[in-house]
Amino acid sequence: MPTTHEALSSLFSRTMIKTRKETPNRAVSVNHDLLIRGNFIRQEAAGIYTILPLGRRVLNNIENIIRHHLNELGSVELTLPALHPKNLWEQTGRWDTVDVLYKVQSKFGKKYVLAATTEEIATPLAKDHIKSYRDLPLSFYSINNKYRDEARAKSGIIRNREFGMKDMYSFHASPEDFAQYYKKVLETYMQIFADCGINAKITEASGGEYTVAATHEFMAISEAGEDEIICCEECSFAQNIEVSGYHEGDKCPKCGEKLKTEKAIEIGHIFDLGIKFSNDFNLKFVDRNGTLQPVFMGCYGIGTTRLMGAVVEIHYDERGIVWPEKLAPYNCHLVGLNMEDSNVNRVAFTLYEYLARKHISVLFDEREKVSPGRKFSDADLIGIPIRLIISKRTVQKNSIEITDRVSGKSEVIPLDKFYRQINQDNFESLK
Amino acid sequence: MPTTHEALSSLFSRTMIKTRKETPNRAVSVNHDLLIRGNFIRQEAAGIYTILPLGRRVLNNIENIIRHHLNELGSVELTLPALHPKNLWEQTGRWDTVDVLYKVQSKFGKKYVLAATTEEIATPLAKDHIKSYRDLPLSFYSINNKYRDEARAKSGIIRNREFGMKDMYSFHASPEDFAQYYKKVLETYMQIFADCGINAKITEASGGEYTVAATHEFMAISEAGEDEIICCEECSFAQNIEVSGYHEGDKCPKCGEKLKTEKAIEIGHIFDLGIKFSNDFNLKFVDRNGTLQPVFMGCYGIGTTRLMGAVVEIHYDERGIVWPEKLAPYNCHLVGLNMEDSNVNRVAFTLYEYLARKHISVLFDEREKVSPGRKFSDADLIGIPIRLIISKRTVQKNSIEITDRVSGKSEVIPLDKFYRQINQDNFESLK
Repeated sequence: MPTTHEALSSLFSRTMIKTRKETPNRAVSVNHDLLIRGNFIRQEAAGIYTILPLGRRVLNNIENIIRHHLNELGSVELTLPALHPKNLWEQTGRWDTVDVLYKVQSKFGKKYVLAATTEEIATPLAKDHIKSYRDLPLSFYSINNKYRDEARAKSGIIRNREFGMKDMYSFHASPEDFAQYYKKVLETYMQIFADCGINAKITEASGGEYTVAATHEFMAISEAGEDEIICCEECSFAQNIEVSGYHEGDKCPKCGEKLKTEKAIEIGHIFDLGIKFSNDFNLKFVDRNGTLQPVFMGCYGIGTTRLMGAVVEIHYDERGIVWPEKLAPYNCHLVGLNMEDSNVNRVAFTLYEYLARKHISVLFDEREKVSPGRKFSDADLIGIPIRLIISKRTVQKNSIEITDRVSGKSEVIPLDKFYRQINQDNFESLK
Repeated sequence: MPTTHEALSSLFSRTMIKTRKETPNRAVSVNHDLLIRGNFIRQEAAGIYTILPLGRRVLNNIENIIRHHLNELGSVELTLPALHPKNLWEQTGRWDTVDVLYKVQSKFGKKYVLAATTEEIATPLAKDHIKSYRDLPLSFYSINNKYRDEARAKSGIIRNREFGMKDMYSFHASPEDFAQYYKKVLETYMQIFADCGINAKITEASGGEYTVAATHEFMAISEAGEDEIICCEECSFAQNIEVSGYHEGDKCPKCGEKLKTEKAIEIGHIFDLGIKFSNDFNLKFVDRNGTLQPVFMGCYGIGTTRLMGAVVEIHYDERGIVWPEKLAPYNCHLVGLNMEDSNVNRVAFTLYEYLARKHISVLFDEREKVSPGRKFSDADLIGIPIRLIISKRTVQKNSIEITDRVSGKSEVIPLDKFYRQINQDNFESLK
């Protein structure tokens, strides 16, 4: 049907959006409730979800923001497999020590680990490409699904058994070169999260089982969080409550303001891996003096589906999701009312086609015999920032109504003026 | 480093291309040998591969060609999970009958199947969205990794244990509506394969364990194929040798020409699923008369990594891969010779930046102290259709050398003329 615009835009009736009458059930979690009612995801089992067409578009936006920033950093994308041979996990001593591993037994005798993390593949792969100091630094990333045998999947798509993840690995000739890159990644992560509408707080955490040194966690403040942090609202100071010596009400050591405790969702985690995995796989390089030296390694994760969940936990109101502009599944939501009227139908379809030609993506609610109330509540739930309304009333006045999802403010402007503005490439300023 | 062009273009030294001196080992298979030596893939275990940056770009092209055509068909993309709960596979009776299933046992008692195919998820999902005849037809697709516990992984990336797959499912109110859609998919598949440089032959096959009716297979003629078909070179006639009553040398029943037998790789397979899975999951719809009716279902697969392997089996010569234009990892391969020379360096980098600004993607071999012979043989192996050469000699003459990977023909033209042509947006005609 949509032959000209293909994936750019979409008719409501063809986007697998099932409108629901149920009342919200936020007892589980906000993101679970809104993402399921909004038709972004479907739960198949505890901790296992299908990403529906609307969710796929949001996730594409998240992944592309990550790609944009990591490519700018000079990293390069590849795709690591999920089935890892047992012997690689024995080589790192993690076959028996990591407790969330799903293990797979082939009927032909082979044993595998389902990727819970990917150092066991990334390190031997890097070894192919690193011979001398001229091959360093090296950085690559992979965006794919991870698997963890969690005792309890919870919080919607925040803690799942199968989940989307971006893992980046970097390889360096010295701890100094690593430290410099690590700092750049830290800044890049803040940009990625800002693009996703999250002002992240950075906390230090202990290394845990995958690392040998301190690590940094990126925290999104939210009531849905499993972590608790103590932080300052005025500056960037933040510490995990479990390791901090500070308490609520103490003076911030950076700016002197009062500290407060907040719940937070971990949305990113970066690690200094030192030479742990280089040693396991004998990953060395020849330095300028011809001497063999160990490679210093870093690991940088962002849970992509979890990030989608965290964004919803932060950007919603009583009517539904309020997507940050860069994550919205479409640039705008065109609501056609009285679509049974041939004039309205023609005006709305003409606008739909025109917007798509101008590369403005549109979700077009073209359904007939659906009440305005239902259409508006569906639009509120789905949460696209800009709503355009064409109805019998606007057509009679040769006008269009534009509504901002955040403020709820509406404006009626002449349709020809709207067309002229679209021509002038200033769509975003219409809000 | 590449801050302006990001992912569009890439420096050779940052693309994880390891140049190799080994002589070819085509004993295994052409695609295995060329894709590994060309740094498109890395084998992690039998049947399990990492997709390296160059391979990632080819696979992106394949996936985007598929998306383009399926979106035009009115299908919509979503992402199905790989971990399937056991109970869904029991409901279809396939938990015990499909012999290639990887089964996963959680330590918390739950059992899963790793997606070998996805009817068990797709059908209940469709049931959410299909209530009445107004919800039909429905079509969606998912591109992700599949898992099959094959006795022998073989032929490079043709038969793997973990592999990329596009699965589409369609749902219809009647066998007639299904048949019409099936025919459209069949035509669309031919366009997809044509875009990938393959003139596919269509054969009928028996349903096999996943279906109840005849199916159609799309075959790429290649010595590497596991199947044998009898077909006509003059027309589209083709049959699988195992079910055909015809023999080599017989007259083609369609055009009268002589038939011949060929080896072929199965690159796509489409199925009439009838009401098998609708019955298993009680997927019904209310027709115009208010009567509950079963939904008719079709399934349409393309192995994306296998398709990459098949393309290489068809498009190569003694020097390496010869990518079809739409699959090449970059639009062109810019070879800088004598890069130690500051003039050459400047001219080559200027051109690199310029091409990227014009949205022509470039792999730029900017390595210093690497011989022209090595650079050319690397370029031949990687197989990008258009090669641009900047060297001390071309710089002295204010010219550029353009070579076609297929014909090997070279042309030297004035550099300013080349820049003008690029401006005129006729890059492809330069070949």
